[in-house]
Amino acid sequence: MARIVVLGAGLMGSAFTTPLADNGHEIRLVGTHLDGDIIEELHESHVHPRLRVRLADAVQPYTYDRLDEALAGADLVVLGVNSLGVDWATYMLAPRLSPETPLLFLTKGLEGDGERLRILPHVLRDGFPPDVQPRLQLAAIGGPSIAGELAVRRHTCVVLTGSDPALLERLAGLLRTPYYHVWTNPDFVGVEVCVALKNVYALAVGIVGGLLEKEGQADNQAVMHNLSAALFAQGLWEIAYLVEWAGGQPASVYSLPAAGDLYVTSMGGRNGRMGRWLGLGLPYSDAKRRYMADETIEGAELALAIGPTVETLVQQGRLDPARIPLLRTMIQIVCNDAPVDIPWDEFFAGS
Amino acid sequence: MARIVVLGAGLMGSAFTTPLADNGHEIRLVGTHLDGDIIEELHESHVHPRLRVRLADAVQPYTYDRLDEALAGADLVVLGVNSLGVDWATYMLAPRLSPETPLLFLTKGLEGDGERLRILPHVLRDGFPPDVQPRLQLAAIGGPSIAGELAVRRHTCVVLTGSDPALLERLAGLLRTPYYHVWTNPDFVGVEVCVALKNVYALAVGIVGGLLEKEGQADNQAVMHNLSAALFAQGLWEIAYLVEWAGGQPASVYSLPAAGDLYVTSMGGRNGRMGRWLGLGLPYSDAKRRYMADETIEGAELALAIGPTVETLVQQGRLDPARIPLLRTMIQIVCNDAPVDIPWDEFFAGS
Repeated sequence: MARIVVLGAGLMGSAFTTPLADNGHEIRLVGTHLDGDIIEELHESHVHPRLRVRLADAVQPYTYDRLDEALAGADLVVLGVNSLGVDWATYMLAPRLSPETPLLFLTKGLEGDGERLRILPHVLRDGFPPDVQPRLQLAAIGGPSIAGELAVRRHTCVVLTGSDPALLERLAGLLRTPYYHVWTNPDFVGVEVCVALKNVYALAVGIVGGLLEKEGQADNQAVMHNLSAALFAQGLWEIAYLVEWAGGQPASVYSLPAAGDLYVTSMGGRNGRMGRWLGLGLPYSDAKRRYMADETIEGAELALAIGPTVETLVQQGRLDPARIPLLRTMIQIVCNDAPVDIPWDEFFAGS
Repeated sequence: MARIVVLGAGLMGSAFTTPLADNGHEIRLVGTHLDGDIIEELHESHVHPRLRVRLADAVQPYTYDRLDEALAGADLVVLGVNSLGVDWATYMLAPRLSPETPLLFLTKGLEGDGERLRILPHVLRDGFPPDVQPRLQLAAIGGPSIAGELAVRRHTCVVLTGSDPALLERLAGLLRTPYYHVWTNPDFVGVEVCVALKNVYALAVGIVGGLLEKEGQADNQAVMHNLSAALFAQGLWEIAYLVEWAGGQPASVYSLPAAGDLYVTSMGGRNGRMGRWLGLGLPYSDAKRRYMADETIEGAELALAIGPTVETLVQQGRLDPARIPLLRTMIQIVCNDAPVDIPWDEFFAGS
């Protein structure tokens, strides 16, 4: 039995308490400043209003002003905020987290600072005091995991990654259940690059929904799966390049972190809904403001977070533009409200 | 303008005439012994009864007894039969095909002869007279291409593979249109292994439809995308191993031939329908006989075609069973009516 703090009471952080509780752990679920209504509802009924699931009795809800109390005696801290919440989480945890307490990221993303792309665990690490940084024990979960399914114990396969194999084995032992299948993978950078990038390519696949709606089913009922599949494949192709560029392993691409996670993310969700608006012809900023103002669209947030840095790296000759035409198209769409214009002739260069 | 013979008037062979006709070619579409009704309907109305599309005027329908006539002056022969038709096509073409006429395979599959696995173009080649074999000009198309979509000019991205790069470039020039995007890829064996194996893994993904139907949506409306995605990823993982084993290139795995084609095949079709019956608990032979007796289920046909050989290769130590647990599970399901039992603990070995 371990004492586990989950910071972020959104969909994924909360769903993650299901396997934790089934393993007999004591769980403290700490809402962020955006999760006030969720924590309140959990105090009242123990039902998570967005997951629509009753959380286990072992889950104790906390508001973030009680974070010190929640962290007391924690064996593990799980970061369940979305990509926009990492700076806030760093701010909250840097003065409080004991470096001996492992920190497990459910949060996925990359950050560009104009010169380089960093994985989120490293962004957080760099926000800690310099003497603490090398002692932090960081790990992350990646792979196809829709929160609502995990919360009701549907089979889910993920990888647990980080740079310390012994830590990974220890954490995997805390997480595994007969329905939550966990593999360890020491390719920290590769896995994190895969799980972050899959969001922007899922947004690309989502565009097809809007294109189809605009053009309509053909008389023979043909839809546009060929197009979705081509974008899916181009996405994996570009992820493979970027993983290699970042120093990761190709095996992470054709397994759970890229292929599996891009597949599941392409099946729907917020990236898909925004993609539909783009395919229908709305500029990104219009669609965001009018229809999804209060939602975090991870694929678009990734484009915003890395777009300018990617363009700088291309201008500096450090990234090969021929290998990432779809990523750059998506950056143009999201950052500059460019129209959807699929660069077919640039696909699969170097194949 | 070229004179192109398409042998096989099923969905894919017939849909392929759309880009051919748009390129101004003269097309002779030759039905097999199973396509009599289709050819008759084409003679009457020029509408393909299964594609539900009017074929271009440049498409002339032929019954197979007029194959000699159709082949006269052909610049290219396209093989559009299903995997079960390759022996018949070999029998028909061996005495008739000029070795100077390139032969382009749309047909996908592998054949096991108890000792080795061969790609279908090589199965056909081995059925030609020994002096002709080295002169045959073989090529194949792979990638995500649902026939009904290609037939109505929806964007479709494929690779053209073969061992002669000059031939590939020449053929690609005959095929490309603004909606039919064709890349050349000299990894003949790798591409053919990918596009064949994707069928058996799409059958595996299809099982989830039946499992979900049996178990039902959860109260929070969760379905089973995590499970589909895990099977998808394990499929790619195994394809990567088998491509390497066969001497192919990993790049074919994370691009159109495996990732793209497995994606599109997992979106539905006959593999998906059979997968559903398996997931519902029916033994394969039962489901086939009762519900899909007259249909070719390529994923199941592949399992039947290579199953015994795969098991022999495993026993001989030439294939590593730890790397192909899902393939062997599917072989057991199809060849031996085994129940669906997903070997979670064996997934992603070697990662």
